Amino acid sequence: MQKLLLHPPLMTMKLELFAIPGIPLIQPGDDLPGIVLAAAAAAGMTWRDGDVLALAQKIVSKAEGRLVHLPEVQPSARARELAGQTGKDPRLVQVILEESTEVLRARPGLLVVEHRLGFVCANAGVDQSNVAGSDDWALLLPLDPDASARRLRDAIRASAGSAVAVIVCDSHGRAWRFGTVGVAIGVAGLHPLSDLRGRADLTGRPLQITEVGTADEIAAAAGLLMGQAGEQRPAVLVRGAAFGAGEGRLAEILRPKALDLFR
Amino acid sequence: MQKLLLHPPLMTMKLELFAIPGIPLIQPGDDLPGIVLAAAAAAGMTWRDGDVLALAQKIVSKAEGRLVHLPEVQPSARARELAGQTGKDPRLVQVILEESTEVLRARPGLLVVEHRLGFVCANAGVDQSNVAGSDDWALLLPLDPDASARRLRDAIRASAGSAVAVIVCDSHGRAWRFGTVGVAIGVAGLHPLSDLRGRADLTGRPLQITEVGTADEIAAAAGLLMGQAGEQRPAVLVRGAAFGAGEGRLAEILRPKALDLFR
Repeated sequence: MQKLLLHPPLMTMKLELFAIPGIPLIQPGDDLPGIVLAAAAAAGMTWRDGDVLALAQKIVSKAEGRLVHLPEVQPSARARELAGQTGKDPRLVQVILEESTEVLRARPGLLVVEHRLGFVCANAGVDQSNVAGSDDWALLLPLDPDASARRLRDAIRASAGSAVAVIVCDSHGRAWRFGTVGVAIGVAGLHPLSDLRGRADLTGRPLQITEVGTADEIAAAAGLLMGQAGEQRPAVLVRGAAFGAGEGRLAEILRPKALDLFR
Repeated sequence: MQKLLLHPPLMTMKLELFAIPGIPLIQPGDDLPGIVLAAAAAAGMTWRDGDVLALAQKIVSKAEGRLVHLPEVQPSARARELAGQTGKDPRLVQVILEESTEVLRARPGLLVVEHRLGFVCANAGVDQSNVAGSDDWALLLPLDPDASARRLRDAIRASAGSAVAVIVCDSHGRAWRFGTVGVAIGVAGLHPLSDLRGRADLTGRPLQITEVGTADEIAAAAGLLMGQAGEQRPAVLVRGAAFGAGEGRLAEILRPKALDLFR
């Protein structure tokens, strides 16, 4: 891991999150960085070094054209079997399987998988909601959300001159709790974990908790403004979060299967 | 569940979090509501209806005197066995077992349990770090964090006249991701889940994600300011979060074991 440069200083007293207004419904091929920059400028918002732009996965995926036309999908025998167990459309299950490396749980209404990107989530992040046109389309996650985040980060730096980190956010369920929370599925310009090993607590004892999921905490905070699945307010500017600046990649936060607590 | 009164309106454009400065190290028996109110007043902070006060579990537990003196603890055979498996102090394991209803995983360095309060977490939330004096003390979670939150909520309302919700926060690890994130372990004045069932997305389709873990998202956001285990900035005022106002209780967000995905 690269040397941690905390950006801004490790302790901050104030955190501000601003939903960027006026982001239109995004269509495949849209210039997402340009749209976000223009919307922020139109709202009089400025970018500062150390800001984080949190973006809902859905608009990133749409801009990247990650749509699958379900009538063209041929479900495999395995997809049909899982469709029977879950009550889902076999074509949608086929799409989910193509985005997954392993099925962890299949129950009525629920398919938990390991996504090809390495994280565990429901339905491989494949979504039918709010895809313009009809129910015939499924929206996949971005092909490489870290790369998506990097393109946005680079575009903001080129346009505004500021070192802004970017997080691509999704909403994930939890094993033991109801309700989804925002999590990071792609990052650029920040390390998703804040590694506190070697630090002492207020009494000088070594800290017991030594790694904080900072990118996920930022994504959860942004989720409070984004609304359901990030559709209403898909871009949030986060100011005042302390994080480890650096190239960063999502894989830093993913437990290798050998360290997974529940497989 | 009570009727949802969203407080403030469902969609907000701005979220602000302020660490309340000047909270001293808390001692057993301290008047925590009084200390937090005085610190906020000294900093010129005001309370508004719809604000959320996020408090680190550790200061709530300390004020409530939830300390156990380890030299007085007699480890059971089961505690000694688990201590051998995990490499932990058998007396500490005994304390953890007394706070737990079930041990889910025991591996070197790790003990994952179902806490008597119903949630799954590491070490039953029992902590040795930063307890003044020595390593001989363990700090338990509050006896009833919902009740702790209610006392704080009532004290703020009595003193400041504002309808402020309160969340008692802890940091939890995740099954598939490194790093801890802030979660709610007690609430007052808000429902921890935002139930969106019946709402439509932007295209009129019923929402696929219908429950959002709002209290956990607020706790995660507050965690960004609290610092490790909430020791440095243990009280955070959150302004601008949309949530379901009402009495609320933590149990609303906990999956019953029958719906648990991994047991």
